[in-house]
Amino acid sequence: MSDLISFASEARKASRKMAVIDKESKNNALLAISAALISNKEEIFRANAEDLRKAEKEKLEGPLLKRLRFDESKLKDVTDGILSLTKLEDPVGKVLLHTSLDEGLELYRVTCPIGVIGVIFESRPDALVQIASLCLKSGNAVFLKGGREAFNTNKVLSEIILKAGIDSGLPEGWLHLLATREDVTAMLSLDKYIDLIIPRGSNEFVKYIMNNTNIAVMGHADGVCHTYIDRDADIDMAVKVATDAKTQYVSVCNATETILIHRDILDKVKGPLYESLKAKGVTIYEEGDVSEWHHEYLDYKVSVKVVDSVNEAVDHINTYGSGHTDAIITDNDETARIFLDSVDSGSVLRNCSTRFADGFRYGFGAEVGISTSKLHARGPVGLEGLITYKYKLTGNGDIVGDYAEGRKTFKHIRHDV
Amino acid sequence: MSDLISFASEARKASRKMAVIDKESKNNALLAISAALISNKEEIFRANAEDLRKAEKEKLEGPLLKRLRFDESKLKDVTDGILSLTKLEDPVGKVLLHTSLDEGLELYRVTCPIGVIGVIFESRPDALVQIASLCLKSGNAVFLKGGREAFNTNKVLSEIILKAGIDSGLPEGWLHLLATREDVTAMLSLDKYIDLIIPRGSNEFVKYIMNNTNIAVMGHADGVCHTYIDRDADIDMAVKVATDAKTQYVSVCNATETILIHRDILDKVKGPLYESLKAKGVTIYEEGDVSEWHHEYLDYKVSVKVVDSVNEAVDHINTYGSGHTDAIITDNDETARIFLDSVDSGSVLRNCSTRFADGFRYGFGAEVGISTSKLHARGPVGLEGLITYKYKLTGNGDIVGDYAEGRKTFKHIRHDV
Repeated sequence: MSDLISFASEARKASRKMAVIDKESKNNALLAISAALISNKEEIFRANAEDLRKAEKEKLEGPLLKRLRFDESKLKDVTDGILSLTKLEDPVGKVLLHTSLDEGLELYRVTCPIGVIGVIFESRPDALVQIASLCLKSGNAVFLKGGREAFNTNKVLSEIILKAGIDSGLPEGWLHLLATREDVTAMLSLDKYIDLIIPRGSNEFVKYIMNNTNIAVMGHADGVCHTYIDRDADIDMAVKVATDAKTQYVSVCNATETILIHRDILDKVKGPLYESLKAKGVTIYEEGDVSEWHHEYLDYKVSVKVVDSVNEAVDHINTYGSGHTDAIITDNDETARIFLDSVDSGSVLRNCSTRFADGFRYGFGAEVGISTSKLHARGPVGLEGLITYKYKLTGNGDIVGDYAEGRKTFKHIRHDV
Repeated sequence: MSDLISFASEARKASRKMAVIDKESKNNALLAISAALISNKEEIFRANAEDLRKAEKEKLEGPLLKRLRFDESKLKDVTDGILSLTKLEDPVGKVLLHTSLDEGLELYRVTCPIGVIGVIFESRPDALVQIASLCLKSGNAVFLKGGREAFNTNKVLSEIILKAGIDSGLPEGWLHLLATREDVTAMLSLDKYIDLIIPRGSNEFVKYIMNNTNIAVMGHADGVCHTYIDRDADIDMAVKVATDAKTQYVSVCNATETILIHRDILDKVKGPLYESLKAKGVTIYEEGDVSEWHHEYLDYKVSVKVVDSVNEAVDHINTYGSGHTDAIITDNDETARIFLDSVDSGSVLRNCSTRFADGFRYGFGAEVGISTSKLHARGPVGLEGLITYKYKLTGNGDIVGDYAEGRKTFKHIRHDV
């Protein structure tokens, strides 16, 4: 623990320096990191082979092994990612607001880094590289903890990235890899040093994090997403979209878990919908079978409920959903308006698949995560989730006494930015 | 507690309805509330007289009595405030971003209310009216808890406001007044129903709130603000600004508590500065006398420390400050840049008084509070602190399968908004 505090204190100090590094230096550091990954690739692959051998011995499942593997193709993905990140505009130093409070008394709201970010992620070594690059680009120091299956790969990757960063001018301690789950538990109490935690991975783990820290947490514990087929839906569209929303990729947070159907359209839609879902291997659970409407299957399974109105659909979603992503299929503009305005979720969709709710598909370039919190960042989060702002006010010896005692009055002239 | 849960559940339901009320209806409700306050003013003044009698019996101090008083002049202030609020643009429904993901697949980021806000405030009945109006304007339901000295006045005010709101179309339960400190403690566990807590009042109380809830908290526990007099400061300006920052109003969070002075200018500035401060009755504590640099006097007292560089000043502020408001006095642009970029506070100022850091002076019209948190809202917070956003995506039967399997590609055309 005392070691961890000294690392955290070093990260806090590093974050002060990261905040004032100019955009060219950050981009140069990113390119240096990319080059270092390529020139040290054999070492990375060796460490990854060791992780893979262990994982096979522990009988890790196929998809997990695939995520754990870090090979030439993954290396190309992450170095391509770094290159595209260097081309994005600098998220730091943007002027969001400019008001002249009075002549020569100028107020600016300017973006700046958050400080120290703690990120906990699944056993995917490429995620480590992505997260480290995003934090660097946004001027934050970072605490990283990856899945234990990837420990050897992560250790080599983080050493290479840390060193290449420092060699090109980043401060000591700008990146630190946590080794154990106990380190994560200890990190949760370091609210003096860490400003934001972004947990990824299993729902249970994210919930545990959210319930055990005073540090702000960005992320989502559940993705209980709905597709509501309204009375005024086009039948073909409803079947096509609901099938995509359920089956296009079942193990992700924006897959639909419950389909709500308006009673008036049930007879027409049920036949083709069930046929389409069953053709993809989906098991359908109706009213009587569902023990818990707040249920995330992450599988070829779906709950179906019949409702009598759009308002009942909205109430169901606001009661049992997770505030993640919910869609309506309808040709009726007024019904769509009620649904989109009333459903209290990060993403609300009309006539398209819940699977679209994702930072890359939304065009944000980089995805930090998807947030079901309503504060700071909501829904799919791009680089702006790693950014805050501060006010800068510059004057010429201005004092409040002059305004309080009526010798001067505020002008408050808002300028376009 | 079970009563409180039912009120909170009613507030949650009300918040869903508040979110979709159009701007005219919200403004009409505000005007109806203003009219109801005026026509029921005798009842309000009677309740206030009772509170004042009790407070005098309990020997409440003069300034506190003044804040507790609710008379014709305070009534005019709050009804004027409501009127100006009706003239502000609606904070809900603003489009912040519009991207065509593909032809006819349109993504919008749109502002919306947060939901249910819990506000705890000092014994100032006019604050109740202001907070209730701000929550209404921003489409939020609200839980209110005022200082116990104002209980009778707050009870009458909240009944009038709740009823006038409902009579003009707001949902039942859109506003609820908590009666006791035990209610506040109970509220802290209602994270299922309450989205944000805004505590005002004593530092100890705000700290208690922050440490005892999973609900997001917006506000500040401390205002340990600094004025740094740099080597390149204009002496007259430094004396004038530092004196204003310390003495213009000592009992507020943006008053300066510590003055840092560069060693190279000490001989020149010390004489006139100390003379000016002492003329206002300020006691000066120097290095040897200061037991704790993180100290908020809220009084005619100030700590003074000599530093050897702008970097030492920045380190001192980032170590002992509270991230609220800090100023530099300097004629050197490069030194100012280092200070403004490196000090990690909500407001960073050059050549003006820390007392300017305030929502009204910043031109935000309404002030919700000042936040030392870095997430969601930072520094002085206007109506935007009561607002979040959601993504709305509308299509024509679009499915992700078409993009995943290469039949379509995203266009991501960003539109001006």
